[in-house]
Amino acid sequence: MTLIDDLTTLLGPAHVLTGGDMDRHARDWTGAYPGEPVAVVRPGDTAQVADCVTLAARHGVPVVPVSGNTGLVGGTYTKGGLMISLERMNRIRDLNPAARTATVEAGVILSALHDAAAAQGLYFPLWFGARGSAMIGGVLSTNAGGSNVLRYGSTRSLCLGLEVVLADGRVLNLMSALHKDNSGYALRDLFIGAEGTLGIITAAVMKLVPAPRAHATATLALGNLADATVLLNRLQEASGGLVEAFEFMPASYSRRLAQVRPDLGLPFGEVPEVTILTELGATSPALCETREDGSVPLTDLLETTVAGLMDEGLITDAIVAQSEAQRGAMWARREAAAEITFARRPFVDTDIAVPLDRAADFLTEIHKRLQAVEQAHEPMTVAHLGDGNLHFTAFPVDGSKATYDRVITMIEDVVATLGGSFSAEHGVGLSKRPSMARRKDGVALDVMRAVKAALDPAGVMNPGKVIPAKDSDAS
Amino acid sequence: MTLIDDLTTLLGPAHVLTGGDMDRHARDWTGAYPGEPVAVVRPGDTAQVADCVTLAARHGVPVVPVSGNTGLVGGTYTKGGLMISLERMNRIRDLNPAARTATVEAGVILSALHDAAAAQGLYFPLWFGARGSAMIGGVLSTNAGGSNVLRYGSTRSLCLGLEVVLADGRVLNLMSALHKDNSGYALRDLFIGAEGTLGIITAAVMKLVPAPRAHATATLALGNLADATVLLNRLQEASGGLVEAFEFMPASYSRRLAQVRPDLGLPFGEVPEVTILTELGATSPALCETREDGSVPLTDLLETTVAGLMDEGLITDAIVAQSEAQRGAMWARREAAAEITFARRPFVDTDIAVPLDRAADFLTEIHKRLQAVEQAHEPMTVAHLGDGNLHFTAFPVDGSKATYDRVITMIEDVVATLGGSFSAEHGVGLSKRPSMARRKDGVALDVMRAVKAALDPAGVMNPGKVIPAKDSDAS
Repeated sequence: MTLIDDLTTLLGPAHVLTGGDMDRHARDWTGAYPGEPVAVVRPGDTAQVADCVTLAARHGVPVVPVSGNTGLVGGTYTKGGLMISLERMNRIRDLNPAARTATVEAGVILSALHDAAAAQGLYFPLWFGARGSAMIGGVLSTNAGGSNVLRYGSTRSLCLGLEVVLADGRVLNLMSALHKDNSGYALRDLFIGAEGTLGIITAAVMKLVPAPRAHATATLALGNLADATVLLNRLQEASGGLVEAFEFMPASYSRRLAQVRPDLGLPFGEVPEVTILTELGATSPALCETREDGSVPLTDLLETTVAGLMDEGLITDAIVAQSEAQRGAMWARREAAAEITFARRPFVDTDIAVPLDRAADFLTEIHKRLQAVEQAHEPMTVAHLGDGNLHFTAFPVDGSKATYDRVITMIEDVVATLGGSFSAEHGVGLSKRPSMARRKDGVALDVMRAVKAALDPAGVMNPGKVIPAKDSDAS
Repeated sequence: MTLIDDLTTLLGPAHVLTGGDMDRHARDWTGAYPGEPVAVVRPGDTAQVADCVTLAARHGVPVVPVSGNTGLVGGTYTKGGLMISLERMNRIRDLNPAARTATVEAGVILSALHDAAAAQGLYFPLWFGARGSAMIGGVLSTNAGGSNVLRYGSTRSLCLGLEVVLADGRVLNLMSALHKDNSGYALRDLFIGAEGTLGIITAAVMKLVPAPRAHATATLALGNLADATVLLNRLQEASGGLVEAFEFMPASYSRRLAQVRPDLGLPFGEVPEVTILTELGATSPALCETREDGSVPLTDLLETTVAGLMDEGLITDAIVAQSEAQRGAMWARREAAAEITFARRPFVDTDIAVPLDRAADFLTEIHKRLQAVEQAHEPMTVAHLGDGNLHFTAFPVDGSKATYDRVITMIEDVVATLGGSFSAEHGVGLSKRPSMARRKDGVALDVMRAVKAALDPAGVMNPGKVIPAKDSDAS
């Protein structure tokens, strides 16, 4: 019996895809990683996932889990491996409004969980562009971030319980809904963000939060980025920690926005050095209930705070949204980021993190160093600044690998001097493995290798991802 | 050269303690674990910790880290091991008000960090009784909890960066101040809560938060515990997530309090089935600034919310503190818990967690089952109810091991049927290793064993703690 025969016996022919039927899974949406799996299987439950892993191991074939396939670092690429799609495991097993938890299978689409929570007046606070396709399994495997991390944390901090199929086909059951549990090592946190290299996540218990009943949104102009940390701290204090988003767009972003998407308009007459989009979210009636005159206390709170900070000279100009339409227009300018950035090629784009108060230092230094490499256009930045997370893109005049390596090395050098990370929220996958080899603490890499070897001694779980080979040349 | 000689050469005689000089470290404050280390050493920096580990390994002697030694599960017990005290590593290396981080060594006492943060208008939000002795190293190694977890999380969620000396004497440097970092496995989370069995934590970067400028505190009476989850959710919504404490004391607690500490008084004329102590904390001027009439908006918010819930019949009686003195009196009744519980012996006490909405089910069922074992007194409960964390104590008539085992098995049985944990915040150490063998998922135990063997192949790091032997008899 071939592996395909065995899998077909297990799952039925409809759930063992080969040839052209695999395209939807084998090619991720970046297009940069056209995979060649031996097959794509679609198990219907955890036991079938375990059986698929066991069968593949018996045939010496590695396995690569795939769910929504919206990752950015080639984490699901395989040549010769078996892709295990979690898409049929799409049940919300339980939603408990009293305990504020949702028990979900790995194939649940993020927006489906949003909808199910909303029906109970609750919110699953993980929000990013691919929410209509991304599935919980991939979200957990990459420890996904997004634009609400500032308030609610990354995926890891939203997960209470986890179910994982291990390399030996056994099922690790950590499916609890507990907020405190000190019974041994933090295994849950270890499998989250491991990108399928230690096991396949099949289900999870996720936290829900009360859905904000009001938002207040503003676009603010600052004279310089160093003031932004002060601004964030002041907004947090004034609101009592209600800041849900704190996004940064420099002058270069605004100018490019005006060129590519003139329909979106610019908020201020003169383009400021620093534009911040911030949003508060509240649940308390005292802040959310519309008054007889039509005003909302949360909006008043933001207006009063912003006015005070303008009097102090910290903010130079400001617009507070007075309607959902104005709020939408503010977000549209921010969400055009990918469109206005990647319209130009070649580019070198990164997803980096620095300590909260070092973003200005990063930009000052990298702009200085980039002068050594001729640029076709000025660099572009857009940032989840409240998390210290910058998406920085340079546009060198040539697209050679040598230039790419030179620029990425410059960026990573500056990040390293500031105590930052070359991967903030996108993970490592295939594309950032060279950065792991170059930049990650050598002892940390050895510890990761030891953990990987202990849990997957035959190296069958998503091989070649995350951890570089011991004597890798880091390029 | 003996190990003692080698250590004396390394550290000087003042920092190598033997004989009676070891008592302060070798005997923990519970008195239940009188250890017999070969020596207690007091290295002054990370390099010396690493050298101590290397020397001990060369002599085949295991190492046990100790900091404040305020743990409750015998985590620092050793017979024949080398105790490595972190007490001299007590520097706050850096405190950054802009980024809201503190870089601390493992020997920093928790209350020293509280004081340093307070001097900057900030708060390190981990609060429990032993804060004047407990040190950061132990706090991290046990993933300590306490009474602010509901709002700010356990220790693991307050840590950004970590430095660890490994079994082979190498130093793992994860000392970043990043809020997002997806560069590989969650090693930081793995070492936190590992109780020194995977490495010795020597330093950390911890998160700080704005210090609340106002608190509002209330003692509330409910007719039954099942309503408490509803109450907590309503308080969170009304306040926008400002609940910092939600503590539960049943009627049995109130009656015992009146007997043992009549000086503290009881809040209500008739003892209610359920007494809840809750506290809100706020930073926003709109909630914190005292008005001309002397009132504080946060207190008004709590009073209005409580009044509404009384009208609905959810709360049957209530007192909102009108002064710091009244607030202090409310907390004094809660903090008398250990005194009024452990005045009676023998006892069987536990630290368990259940899902947020299952505390009432736990108590109903355990009280029913305990009728099979004659009790000298009614059981006692006090709970961080907002975390689903109950400290439950039974008082059987005899103190035999057989009775202890019978009662603890009953409690663990009920906890297991509710999807709970036998250790919420105290950890495992030595005393809960039998519970690990009996109750923890077998696959999870095997994964922990694999991780332990990978990172400490010779078994020299705090041996005999946390993980039970493979063929342990679970008693």
